[in-house]
Amino acid sequence: MAALFRGSRILILRWNKHVDFSHVSVRSLASKTPVGFIGLGNMGSPMAKNLIKNGYPVIATDAFPESCKELLDLGAQVVDSPAQVAERADRIITMLPSSPNVIEVYTGPNGILKKVKKGTLLVDSSTIDPAVAKEMAVAAEKMGAVYMDAPVSGGVGAASLAKLTFMVGGVEQEYHAAQELLTCMGANAVYCGQVGTGQAAKICNNMLLAIGMIGTAETMNLGIRLGLDPKLLSKVLNMSSGRCWSSDTYNPVPGVMDGVPSANNYQGGFGTTLMAKDLGLAQNTASDTKTAVPLGSLAHQIYRVMCSRGYANKDFSSVFQFLREEEGQ
Amino acid sequence: MAALFRGSRILILRWNKHVDFSHVSVRSLASKTPVGFIGLGNMGSPMAKNLIKNGYPVIATDAFPESCKELLDLGAQVVDSPAQVAERADRIITMLPSSPNVIEVYTGPNGILKKVKKGTLLVDSSTIDPAVAKEMAVAAEKMGAVYMDAPVSGGVGAASLAKLTFMVGGVEQEYHAAQELLTCMGANAVYCGQVGTGQAAKICNNMLLAIGMIGTAETMNLGIRLGLDPKLLSKVLNMSSGRCWSSDTYNPVPGVMDGVPSANNYQGGFGTTLMAKDLGLAQNTASDTKTAVPLGSLAHQIYRVMCSRGYANKDFSSVFQFLREEEGQ
Amino acid sequence: MAALFRGSRILILRWNKHVDFSHVSVRSLASKTPVGFIGLGNMGSPMAKNLIKNGYPVIATDAFPESCKELLDLGAQVVDSPAQVAERADRIITMLPSSPNVIEVYTGPNGILKKVKKGTLLVDSSTIDPAVAKEMAVAAEKMGAVYMDAPVSGGVGAASLAKLTFMVGGVEQEYHAAQELLTCMGANAVYCGQVGTGQAAKICNNMLLAIGMIGTAETMNLGIRLGLDPKLLSKVLNMSSGRCWSSDTYNPVPGVMDGVPSANNYQGGFGTTLMAKDLGLAQNTASDTKTAVPLGSLAHQIYRVMCSRGYANKDFSSVFQFLREEEGQ
Amino acid sequence: MAALFRGSRILILRWNKHVDFSHVSVRSLASKTPVGFIGLGNMGSPMAKNLIKNGYPVIATDAFPESCKELLDLGAQVVDSPAQVAERADRIITMLPSSPNVIEVYTGPNGILKKVKKGTLLVDSSTIDPAVAKEMAVAAEKMGAVYMDAPVSGGVGAASLAKLTFMVGGVEQEYHAAQELLTCMGANAVYCGQVGTGQAAKICNNMLLAIGMIGTAETMNLGIRLGLDPKLLSKVLNMSSGRCWSSDTYNPVPGVMDGVPSANNYQGGFGTTLMAKDLGLAQNTASDTKTAVPLGSLAHQIYRVMCSRGYANKDFSSVFQFLREEEGQ
Repeated sequence: MAALFRGSRILILRWNKHVDFSHVSVRSLASKTPVGFIGLGNMGSPMAKNLIKNGYPVIATDAFPESCKELLDLGAQVVDSPAQVAERADRIITMLPSSPNVIEVYTGPNGILKKVKKGTLLVDSSTIDPAVAKEMAVAAEKMGAVYMDAPVSGGVGAASLAKLTFMVGGVEQEYHAAQELLTCMGANAVYCGQVGTGQAAKICNNMLLAIGMIGTAETMNLGIRLGLDPKLLSKVLNMSSGRCWSSDTYNPVPGVMDGVPSANNYQGGFGTTLMAKDLGLAQNTASDTKTAVPLGSLAHQIYRVMCSRGYANKDFSSVFQFLREEEGQ
Repeated sequence: MAALFRGSRILILRWNKHVDFSHVSVRSLASKTPVGFIGLGNMGSPMAKNLIKNGYPVIATDAFPESCKELLDLGAQVVDSPAQVAERADRIITMLPSSPNVIEVYTGPNGILKKVKKGTLLVDSSTIDPAVAKEMAVAAEKMGAVYMDAPVSGGVGAASLAKLTFMVGGVEQEYHAAQELLTCMGANAVYCGQVGTGQAAKICNNMLLAIGMIGTAETMNLGIRLGLDPKLLSKVLNMSSGRCWSSDTYNPVPGVMDGVPSANNYQGGFGTTLMAKDLGLAQNTASDTKTAVPLGSLAHQIYRVMCSRGYANKDFSSVFQFLREEEGQ
Repeated sequence: MAALFRGSRILILRWNKHVDFSHVSVRSLASKTPVGFIGLGNMGSPMAKNLIKNGYPVIATDAFPESCKELLDLGAQVVDSPAQVAERADRIITMLPSSPNVIEVYTGPNGILKKVKKGTLLVDSSTIDPAVAKEMAVAAEKMGAVYMDAPVSGGVGAASLAKLTFMVGGVEQEYHAAQELLTCMGANAVYCGQVGTGQAAKICNNMLLAIGMIGTAETMNLGIRLGLDPKLLSKVLNMSSGRCWSSDTYNPVPGVMDGVPSANNYQGGFGTTLMAKDLGLAQNTASDTKTAVPLGSLAHQIYRVMCSRGYANKDFSSVFQFLREEEGQ
Repeated sequence: MAALFRGSRILILRWNKHVDFSHVSVRSLASKTPVGFIGLGNMGSPMAKNLIKNGYPVIATDAFPESCKELLDLGAQVVDSPAQVAERADRIITMLPSSPNVIEVYTGPNGILKKVKKGTLLVDSSTIDPAVAKEMAVAAEKMGAVYMDAPVSGGVGAASLAKLTFMVGGVEQEYHAAQELLTCMGANAVYCGQVGTGQAAKICNNMLLAIGMIGTAETMNLGIRLGLDPKLLSKVLNMSSGRCWSSDTYNPVPGVMDGVPSANNYQGGFGTTLMAKDLGLAQNTASDTKTAVPLGSLAHQIYRVMCSRGYANKDFSSVFQFLREEEGQ
């Protein structure tokens, strides 16, 4: 506790130098208990910053210590392992790349569950297999802790602007405790049901997103070949039953919309490898539950092939480019 | 001309008995020239009625004479063949099931082009291969007539309520002449470009619609298997990037929305065979233009299989039911 | 040891009554050490019988004790659990439905590894995820035992006639010890490499088999629609580059071949659910290894839908029937 | 006739210089009537040479006159148009790239049917839409000529060695007259039924071939990822139910077989664009006949995408390379 208090003090001092917190009263800061944050990658780092911005003392760690520097400068306490975070915080957020990382961070030799305090609230915002989420929840419960899954919709931009949407699964009584933190990092939080349903909702959304995006790319391609102007075709689709998020908000055809990756050579946005990963999760859960997902399955294959043909790091809307037959070929 | 005038008079007399035209002044009626209408099926019949309602004398025909009865009662003049329509009207609308019917009605032995007057405006609202539309336009031009393609979005309900959307292809100078008639039968008309682009836009929209619908069905199915409530999942999708017309306006899962075919055992709506037909057109134009449409192609196959497994006459959203693994199997 | 010896004696006595072993000398019987057999289903039962026929004392168990009756009558010693088998035999064959069963039988509370003797050879003929096979091998090695995977090609008929093909993965030095037993139950054994490669080969074969079968069904269907006689079309394919096992050995069209499931209303053979299961394994290993398998993936989906549309228990060649559009639809 | 006789004489003189015809008696040459040949591309040229080799005077033409040079040197009479061929020969073979070329050569302004003599036998070895073949047959019949479709299996190599297989559709009574010529150019001819069934058989074969090839490529790729040696995996497949022409005769994995395109950087063989064309025909006939061909359809899409990603001129077995995820991606 002494250490934590000291940590908070350092935090306050540093804030004065680095961030404009003129709107945050010292009184509210003093009353907030520290929050652990594990995983400071492209998404986790801005999320943790938003917790700090909202007055939460943050105790952080990452497999790559250099990822913690920026947060340290903002006043976070940086420790060496998830276990050390668990010793110091009774609410912990995790934001990790994939299922094996989550398993390691929770149940590994220096994992959270090695030192977790009874009653700790564990919120995992990684996108992982719902079955792994359920396993983590069981393991946490054995230690007297509560695990919730809360994957996000929205990318790095939404994380910075605290505009993420969280899809939350877990015991309903604990949802409000989680919500208090999640609303500091996002604009919406939706309670989806028992543990794993947050992941399920995320996976479902991204599968339909991928289908809609590839479908939009095919359709725009076909229309252009048939002599339609891409902007006009988009307009027709968006006022008709072909309308979808990929046609009206994130159009994959260069020149149709501004401010989207297709307007910037498919840089930024949501990478093809990440989409392929999420579709792999959807495929696995579909196989496990014996659910037929023919288009989801084909979408997975298309993004898989794209990864091997040089599109791995482009935004997933680059499927428009991938499918287009070029002149002279 | 005498015959036509007589036709108009009968029309007026009958109107008084059958329809409320209190808002239509006799003056405007008197000034309107007759419009030909060929093809009085589920769609054509309410469309022709809306022309009459707007004060146009209608000269109609159909391969099945009994289809004309209702229109006759409303005052339309019914003739025996497309050629006879062409002798009597200088604006003609056609609404036919498929490409071969269009070819027959335009270029057959008793077809429009056998008797068409110079300067006649021919507007085809059938959904057909854009290549056939182009052929008809060339054939019409040889006779001094103008052909435009103007397929519709919206079903029987929209046709009755004059809420159709028309996608129009053809010479731009003639668009306004067509528009005058189209706005009597629909809420929107979009000029898409040269002849065939109306068909192209229609086909593109329906391909993306089919992809979105199957994708939504798969996604809802998977989510339900993973423990999500269907209404909640729809809500999550609709506030996220998975949103599409099939998820937010025409949800295929019984119980999620009212007033859609899924709420009524997939009766009414847009039949699976019709969707399979439109996807066949999309596939053919894609093959002809060497365009890759992997999801569109698979959607076509899925609707094709559904036609053979008892879903031919159900609404196309019944793909949700088709893909769902039932209990005990 | 006394129990086992007694078991063997009973075995010999019972053999004289039920099976013709006139060609098996008592001398060879006496010299053979007992073999454990776990999993006496449709496949395991005839496989175990063939071991007995070849003079091996068999110590058997199954989750459903009634499955052991026939084997008991043939002289096998029946025990209560995999652990008890492991106490009594130093070569054990397992033949189980799926990965979870294998995990239970090997590592469960009454599993083989609870009582396995050092140096025991464990041969698993189940078709499971290669990753699970590797896990079992590691677990076995910790106990000083050797695990090999040896899934089979060929169905119940081949199992009865000892005509199975085994695809074997594991330490090469142990292969010959396994081969001695496998050749009693099959016509071929192929050494494929390290642990898991037997499963890999099996999964690969069945994925290509499914693709070839669906492809053959589609092709025959299309040819028949185009006016070709099915027997003639099969002949043409089989002398050309379209030739495959499904066209020349197991044709899915009724009337083309005798003695195959398509000649018997798709009864018998290899059930659609089993194929769907194997394709699920292929899909999972493909996702895990980031391998693009578009046709394999679609084949999986097709068999998955068939399971839900009443084809679960028909032979997998019934996809011909599933895809065929019936008259009047 | 004088012209033809002169042609034949030149033919004989030239033969003595260029080709070894020591086994061909002058007597038989004298008795053979000339054969027309239209379309001297990669396939047509060696086919026409084989007719000459078998003693048939050949009267040839091609849209690109330079294509005729080699044949001219071998003694063929070269004329300017299909119509001129039709004036001089009463048996004519055509070998053209696609449906529009066939329509032009038969029914165009300088087409065969402009000058065809009654009773002429027209044999089209192009691979085209069966519906176009039927139209040509009707048009030929009106002129008193007989049209048969006889597309080939086997590539340029088989054409040179007279090892092609012909699949023949048309009136059965005329089959023997066609067979006499076809057996000079190929090893097999199969009578398939009425006009169009030769094309149907060809299209069906190539659709199944494409499915088998992509399936083999996926399977080999997956197996290699799972640690199997490609040669060993091929051996296992070829002795099991995964066996197909693409696995045992034309394996797509470099290093598995000699003398196939995969051993030569996918040079030579059957190009991806040609396969995409044939799959487009299969798709169109399937759409027209309302036949579900899900794998055939996806195969079409895959080859279509390959055409746009730089594989257009590689052998179609290069799909193995296309689907493989490279290191570091």
